Amino acid sequence: VVNAARLLGRLRTLGDVGRDGQGRLVRLAGSDADKAGRDLLAAWMREAGLEVAVDRIGNMFGVWRAGVDPKAPPVMMGSHIDTVIDAGIYDGCTGVLGGLEVIQALKEGGFAPRRPLAVAAFTNEEGVRYAPDMMGSLVTAGGLSVEDALASVGTDGAILGAELERIGYAGAEEPGFLKPHAYLELHVEQGPVLEREGFSIGAVATLQGISWQRVTIVGEANHAGTTPMSLRRDAGVAAARVVTFLSDRARASNTPTVATIGCMRFEPDAINVIPSRATFTVDLRDPDEARLQEEEAALAGYLDKLQDSEGVAISVERLARFQPVTFDYRLVAMIETAARTRGLACRRMTSGAGHDAQMIARVAPAAMIFVPSLGGISHNPRENTPDADIIAGASILLDVVTSLASE
Amino acid sequence: VVNAARLLGRLRTLGDVGRDGQGRLVRLAGSDADKAGRDLLAAWMREAGLEVAVDRIGNMFGVWRAGVDPKAPPVMMGSHIDTVIDAGIYDGCTGVLGGLEVIQALKEGGFAPRRPLAVAAFTNEEGVRYAPDMMGSLVTAGGLSVEDALASVGTDGAILGAELERIGYAGAEEPGFLKPHAYLELHVEQGPVLEREGFSIGAVATLQGISWQRVTIVGEANHAGTTPMSLRRDAGVAAARVVTFLSDRARASNTPTVATIGCMRFEPDAINVIPSRATFTVDLRDPDEARLQEEEAALAGYLDKLQDSEGVAISVERLARFQPVTFDYRLVAMIETAARTRGLACRRMTSGAGHDAQMIARVAPAAMIFVPSLGGISHNPRENTPDADIIAGASILLDVVTSLASE
Ligand SMILES: NC(=O)NCCC(=O)O
Ligand SMILES: NC(=O)NCCC(=O)O
Repeated sequence: VVNAARLLGRLRTLGDVGRDGQGRLVRLAGSDADKAGRDLLAAWMREAGLEVAVDRIGNMFGVWRAGVDPKAPPVMMGSHIDTVIDAGIYDGCTGVLGGLEVIQALKEGGFAPRRPLAVAAFTNEEGVRYAPDMMGSLVTAGGLSVEDALASVGTDGAILGAELERIGYAGAEEPGFLKPHAYLELHVEQGPVLEREGFSIGAVATLQGISWQRVTIVGEANHAGTTPMSLRRDAGVAAARVVTFLSDRARASNTPTVATIGCMRFEPDAINVIPSRATFTVDLRDPDEARLQEEEAALAGYLDKLQDSEGVAISVERLARFQPVTFDYRLVAMIETAARTRGLACRRMTSGAGHDAQMIARVAPAAMIFVPSLGGISHNPRENTPDADIIAGASILLDVVTSLASE
Repeated sequence: VVNAARLLGRLRTLGDVGRDGQGRLVRLAGSDADKAGRDLLAAWMREAGLEVAVDRIGNMFGVWRAGVDPKAPPVMMGSHIDTVIDAGIYDGCTGVLGGLEVIQALKEGGFAPRRPLAVAAFTNEEGVRYAPDMMGSLVTAGGLSVEDALASVGTDGAILGAELERIGYAGAEEPGFLKPHAYLELHVEQGPVLEREGFSIGAVATLQGISWQRVTIVGEANHAGTTPMSLRRDAGVAAARVVTFLSDRARASNTPTVATIGCMRFEPDAINVIPSRATFTVDLRDPDEARLQEEEAALAGYLDKLQDSEGVAISVERLARFQPVTFDYRLVAMIETAARTRGLACRRMTSGAGHDAQMIARVAPAAMIFVPSLGGISHNPRENTPDADIIAGASILLDVVTSLASE
């Protein structure tokens, strides 16, 4: 059985690593805060008697080289420990520390697996500093070359490769060196479904498509007092029209499509100067690939017309694009069986967020276990999951891993 | 007669003081760049044989203590040398260097005035770093206490008083120590009217009302992928609705009302996080006070409704509010007469921009001389006025000052 006090204690301890001057949790990939979190995780892995390995993109692995063949593909668990800006403590860390707890509990309980067990913490899952998100697992799955990933330029201008060198996590292993027999990720739901419907476990069967773009609108700076409305080429007004267009369209549709503009910047950003440039991000998601393509096309069409109607020039850069994913049917069923056996209310569901499991699913059977997020709140310091749900989720993880380790 | 080469040469020299790493002219009030511009101006004032004085809010004066009574109220010219971000070289500097040239030309020509002549460079006219704009002249006119002005917090958090101390322009004179007999300001139009209608001189008779506000919208951060559109409290979407509301309303009206959102900031500013906070500025202007009040009321009403419809909390801070101004009728007529005498096409007009003259008008007869802005472009590095127009404007300034100096 999992050690509840140890798992919950570690979650809270790691949750205080990387607080900024305002007390916000900001552990962006490749930052000093990330290094502090990684150092702590590596210490806990060693404490549990695991071998610690780091690959070239900075993914960290704690491996219990046990079983009949210590070189056999391990049963892998994992997630990430990087965070968004002003984050909660559960997103990602639950899966990494839950996986570590499962291995440590099995070791301490005298369990004898037939194959190795491993826990992974993938680099830059959040995608806040470097795009695309799920970068470390994407590289592992061969979806992005390690060279391109290391060359990524952050929102602050820093190169990921240089940052990993600086914080001491540019490892030697080739990404993908540890091919899993199966991959399982425990994660908080980050949405309202489980709590609202009274389930404590989600067996995640699918994950929606994600489209990230950066839009740049160029107009003309001019004086706010002397320039008649009819003579303006206002990049800020054009950007605002895109925001309301996307929000109105997604709200009006009867589909689960979501559209978010999270980053926005005006230049020169002066009170009495008409903005000459506006730059913003667009995050579009849909469980249906055809509908996601329709949404992308609708945005492109709108931007096209906007160039004429507002007299601006618009360019678009793709930051990330992932199709919807279907997880491994057998693993999903094993999660449901384990929950039934423990008498936990479990629901098959889709994931609104992107996860490392969706990348590993390209190279190994993969699935996810969700636990409830109170109020559906995430990417917010008020993110919260009851202790009992965390322990329930980790217990299901332990059950399924126990089965898989005997295969 | 004015020395054209000297005036134009100084305009270009000063226009290269305060270039940033990208080559942009950024000479914000109280900055190192402002100090460099002020040092150069003081050197030119001394070179012209003027007495240099600085008051507590950092306004600079070059005084020719001439005439029957060297303590008599001077004929004052002036404007400002602070700039916006990525500015042109004419806004403000034309009036300061034009005034300096008029005094120097009259001195060199052996002119014997009946009263002193002075040229002023007022602190923080642009209002980009510190609000309100026209701050130095407003303090001079008694519209804002020098203590409150010095306590202003800049967009970068720096206190104006401390910045003036730091750059050595926290002077000893009490603001208003030099009460003008009359005040004249030469300035580029910064709008399209003179060029489009073929005039080389504008006699500015009125100046429109200005309303500056800062709006803060607080919503709730949440995950961009897992939060259904119906459950969002998106501060960024609410802000975008305000931008389109103001722009649509001003465009649709048959009035000269202008509305500008120049500054915009989203927090936490992350691609996959719904904005929890949006902060932006609103610049509303109208030549008619009653209509400006209507526009402010319409905005307030819209924000009120938006709180309910978007589930956000909105607060508004007033940054500046100035009613429309009527300049001194006699001075306006003198400008028109001088233009007619020189055979220059002159038009009576209103100013869309705020100017130091509107503040000095509260304590002395004041008026302004406009010269054309090519393409109506200002607050933009492409701001431009033909050399001949600059010299024509400075010549009209010299003519009117010559008359006033004999009163
Ligand atoms: N789980 C999670 O928050 N992942 C970040 C990537 C995304 O935006 O979905
Ligand atoms: N002349 C000028 O640009 N003044 C700045 C204040 C304003 O925004 O009107």
